[in-house]
Amino acid sequence: MKLSDIKTPEDLKRFPREELPSLAQEIREKITHVVSENGGHLAGNLGVVELSIALHRVFNSPKDKIIFDVGHQCYTHKILTGRQYDFDTLRQYGGISGFPKKSESPHDAYETGHASTALSAALGYARARDLQNENHHVVAVVGDGALTGGMCYEALNDAGNNKTRLIVVLNDNQMSIGRNVGALNNYLSHLRTSERYLMIKKGVSLILNKIPLIGNILYKAVQSAKNHLRNLLVKESYFTSLGFKYLGPIDGHNEALIEELLERAKQFKEPVILHIVTTKGAGYAPAEVEPERMHGTPPFSLVDGKCKNSSTSKSYSKALGEELVRLAENNPKIVGISAAMVESTGLELLRQAHPDRVFDVGIAEEHAAALAAGMASGGLRPVLAVYDTFMQRAIDQIIMDIALQKLPVVMALDRSGIGGEDGPTHHGVFGTALFRNIPNLLLLSPRSTEELKQMLAFSFEQEKPVIIRYAKSEGHRQRELPKANFSLGIWEQLKLSNDICIIAYGRMVDEALDASDILSEDGIHAGVINASSIKPIDTSLINKLSIKNIPYIVVEEVQLSGGLGSAIAEYAMQEGLNPPLKVLALPDEFIPHGDRKTLLAELGLDAKSIAECILSLADEFTKDYA
Amino acid sequence: MKLSDIKTPEDLKRFPREELPSLAQEIREKITHVVSENGGHLAGNLGVVELSIALHRVFNSPKDKIIFDVGHQCYTHKILTGRQYDFDTLRQYGGISGFPKKSESPHDAYETGHASTALSAALGYARARDLQNENHHVVAVVGDGALTGGMCYEALNDAGNNKTRLIVVLNDNQMSIGRNVGALNNYLSHLRTSERYLMIKKGVSLILNKIPLIGNILYKAVQSAKNHLRNLLVKESYFTSLGFKYLGPIDGHNEALIEELLERAKQFKEPVILHIVTTKGAGYAPAEVEPERMHGTPPFSLVDGKCKNSSTSKSYSKALGEELVRLAENNPKIVGISAAMVESTGLELLRQAHPDRVFDVGIAEEHAAALAAGMASGGLRPVLAVYDTFMQRAIDQIIMDIALQKLPVVMALDRSGIGGEDGPTHHGVFGTALFRNIPNLLLLSPRSTEELKQMLAFSFEQEKPVIIRYAKSEGHRQRELPKANFSLGIWEQLKLSNDICIIAYGRMVDEALDASDILSEDGIHAGVINASSIKPIDTSLINKLSIKNIPYIVVEEVQLSGGLGSAIAEYAMQEGLNPPLKVLALPDEFIPHGDRKTLLAELGLDAKSIAECILSLADEFTKDYA
Repeated sequence: MKLSDIKTPEDLKRFPREELPSLAQEIREKITHVVSENGGHLAGNLGVVELSIALHRVFNSPKDKIIFDVGHQCYTHKILTGRQYDFDTLRQYGGISGFPKKSESPHDAYETGHASTALSAALGYARARDLQNENHHVVAVVGDGALTGGMCYEALNDAGNNKTRLIVVLNDNQMSIGRNVGALNNYLSHLRTSERYLMIKKGVSLILNKIPLIGNILYKAVQSAKNHLRNLLVKESYFTSLGFKYLGPIDGHNEALIEELLERAKQFKEPVILHIVTTKGAGYAPAEVEPERMHGTPPFSLVDGKCKNSSTSKSYSKALGEELVRLAENNPKIVGISAAMVESTGLELLRQAHPDRVFDVGIAEEHAAALAAGMASGGLRPVLAVYDTFMQRAIDQIIMDIALQKLPVVMALDRSGIGGEDGPTHHGVFGTALFRNIPNLLLLSPRSTEELKQMLAFSFEQEKPVIIRYAKSEGHRQRELPKANFSLGIWEQLKLSNDICIIAYGRMVDEALDASDILSEDGIHAGVINASSIKPIDTSLINKLSIKNIPYIVVEEVQLSGGLGSAIAEYAMQEGLNPPLKVLALPDEFIPHGDRKTLLAELGLDAKSIAECILSLADEFTKDYA
Repeated sequence: MKLSDIKTPEDLKRFPREELPSLAQEIREKITHVVSENGGHLAGNLGVVELSIALHRVFNSPKDKIIFDVGHQCYTHKILTGRQYDFDTLRQYGGISGFPKKSESPHDAYETGHASTALSAALGYARARDLQNENHHVVAVVGDGALTGGMCYEALNDAGNNKTRLIVVLNDNQMSIGRNVGALNNYLSHLRTSERYLMIKKGVSLILNKIPLIGNILYKAVQSAKNHLRNLLVKESYFTSLGFKYLGPIDGHNEALIEELLERAKQFKEPVILHIVTTKGAGYAPAEVEPERMHGTPPFSLVDGKCKNSSTSKSYSKALGEELVRLAENNPKIVGISAAMVESTGLELLRQAHPDRVFDVGIAEEHAAALAAGMASGGLRPVLAVYDTFMQRAIDQIIMDIALQKLPVVMALDRSGIGGEDGPTHHGVFGTALFRNIPNLLLLSPRSTEELKQMLAFSFEQEKPVIIRYAKSEGHRQRELPKANFSLGIWEQLKLSNDICIIAYGRMVDEALDASDILSEDGIHAGVINASSIKPIDTSLINKLSIKNIPYIVVEEVQLSGGLGSAIAEYAMQEGLNPPLKVLALPDEFIPHGDRKTLLAELGLDAKSIAECILSLADEFTKDYA
């Protein structure tokens, strides 16, 4: 049999055991090939091929529920559940998602994207099963990285008290995006290095052939797995003190052994955790060697794993890191905090310069925010660098720990705006609405890396919290513009006009400039204003536009509801001024995955759409404001 | 010496050891007396009198930092740090806060209010100390209830990996607001019932004389404490697997023993957790017998602990519970979830009717939300009942787990609006702004308990999430009004007028009605509209007001920024309609503690202020809209 014979997991169950190694090989090739073309999550997916095969051989999805924490490791699952022929559309607009999606398949029991939710969801499914007198299994697959998140503990604490039947598979690959941190990780490492585990692993483990390109995987079918299993359980105290049964650790690339362990777990009447040790990137040497770089990757060359075309646009993360190094040189109070994103947010540069001044707390944004508040209370000047969408986890701590005490914490929120191919769980599109209502706090968005640097220097001089939201990389028009000259509450008039003005911020400034160019062909002179200061807004400029009767529209890459346009409308209403003529922003719905350019056009937010909107309004504003 | 001799903790250090029991007695009397007059947190504070005395004798605050988790157990701390003479203003407008406040005293190292933040803050302080080469101690006092929150685990996981010097005092009173839940609680209970602990407790413990009123506390000074201590440590595995040293459990009412343990903890070069067992309500019989009722209490009679004047206004919590019982009778899919608030949110009624259908997850709002999402995925109809302000903890889960999957979860958010005496951490004033920007979701606010019941029945029929925000109790005008007739997106015109309309929701409807009455004396007929549906808004009514040129103002008990007024202004802007003439709402700052009536008047939101505002606008609206 071959991969192409598998239409449903039932086909997988009929797959001859001795041919499973070549199936795993085929799957690895498919994943590596598609991700090399489309970009995506690679290393984690290669690590769970055998685990995913075993799960679908032992359990009966969709009757049994399998929930993948974070969800970016669901590629093998998707391939095995009827989506192998669509798999080449992975992460493309209209194609299949890189994360579980209920609308794609009944086998996707729960949608994930942000870490540490699967145990809670699985417990919910398990309780629903019990109350409705159903009898299926519920399985949560969670990484050791996600276990650093407090939600997992909350769910363990609840489940371990409840004794509902629930199977948790701990996929321990010793990594979050980067190397995993924390005391529990040390403890898991202690379990992994137990003599029993090493003995078993040596005896039965899968040997991966580490040649470049996709290696020949020499799979030794382990007929003696059953005999080994009963000897291989380590005495454990963390999970057992929380009321769980613990089985493991076992080699996560030994499919037969995993099957055996899963079968055993099915017999339990209470919550059980299975500790499976996997290797991120397994089977593809470049990903094994650099699992962090190949955690999520743009398209790359299959031969050596090198990125195909590295972007030429300036990275905000790099700018953040560089400027922090410069500022920290003269200010010993500056420290960096991140939640498993030290590399990707640029804090790594600060860590290299001052290893003792950067703290990676794991996937724990809530703790990160309160830790920053504590550090600021103790006299330091912390910068908390996290992706915009993940900072939603810490709204309460921003309000109650940071803003209420008016603590000088700088929050650098990366990957704001439409994130692209990762889809709705990774777009940073709620930030303006969520953050601008918090008292005592400044909210900024730079149009360029240079402006980010100015904002950073400014932020460390404030005696209050500052949030700076920025995209992944600088827009295409920034190189031709004069250097930014950031000033709080004063917007930058990039292009003057008395006809109509476009107010934009962040990367939308580039779309606004392009729109203005398009309009000039129609004889309309559209001014462009860079609203880099979202809170406070530039009230004197709004007043001026109103007095001069200059109409203006606002364009922004966040939800319309609660955004900058809304802030201006609020002000105009209270002062009896002209509000914006129109706000172009995201609709009140979740934005799907796809490349940003396509999405902007679909959503009416690209330069062309902005220009068309202004043309359609031309009558209105010449009438109203003439 | 007496309590009156203690101006600073230094005086406490000079206090003769043999007189400490009578000091504890004095403090208990003071706390019980003031809380019986002002209301406040009683049971928890009575439990930590000895602990607080020991902390201030062993440590040197404010050089050493003492951080109280949640903070409502800081009364003894406040009394011992220079605030005993202001203590009778506790929780009154302009008086001292019921929670730590940096502005009150340098001894209040960190402001708390929401649970489970102290460990993170303390770790921040400890790291700030280390980086700045300081040498003081940092102590976090955390309850076993707060330990159910995932943030505590995140902080333990970070601290236990870091080996920074840090002292965590686990104040184990076996309670959150109600009886504590969860697997860790079972585990702590196992430690508490260890033979060694019981032996020591029997030998040395404080005997509390359980007569009504404040008992005579027979304190046996335990000179032999030191000899006992070294024998009394239990082997522990949960905290030690997270890298902490563990000492305990010891009797938390034996002051000498606590001092000895704290002294020992000071010697450690690494993070250490001290397990102290206390009794909530200790020393005041009514609070010992009913610690849940007397956790936070209104004014009560000292003699028997009974509430002085129970409110006659209808409780929303009770209405919620009653209606859930009614609905659950015919719908077996309805289940309740709360985060340590089953009693106070009214879910208790449902639990009594269906014990297997109510789940208390501990102080774990994030998990509660994702658990609800899992249950809804599994076919149930969960209602998640939590206080409005605490739901800020779960914004990300509401967005990413509930709304993205469009799961039919009903969120019943109690104690919305200005909460009163508990202050800024307990006011529910960000809810409209935070929740109305979330796609796929309905946001409602009833004016009466009857309308809440209608909204509940409606919500369980929706195939999407619904958030209902409501105050603690019904407003004073509701009994005279006709029964509510809730309909989604259709606002109720309680009073018609073509002069001007007041749009309000929730409890502000009552202020609007009163304002309208006041205005009628000036010959102004102000209509009153009940905007019970915040998302969606009633666009056809807004259109109608605009077409008829009827001016309107919006009054709301949340931040102006992002509120309903803002939602209407957004809509009016996009449609080119007249926006509200004015929005009266909360300013962009944190609202202090005080009784709601005083606060509303101070903030210009009581009926009188609303009427005055409309009078001052009279010229404007007669001009603009005539």
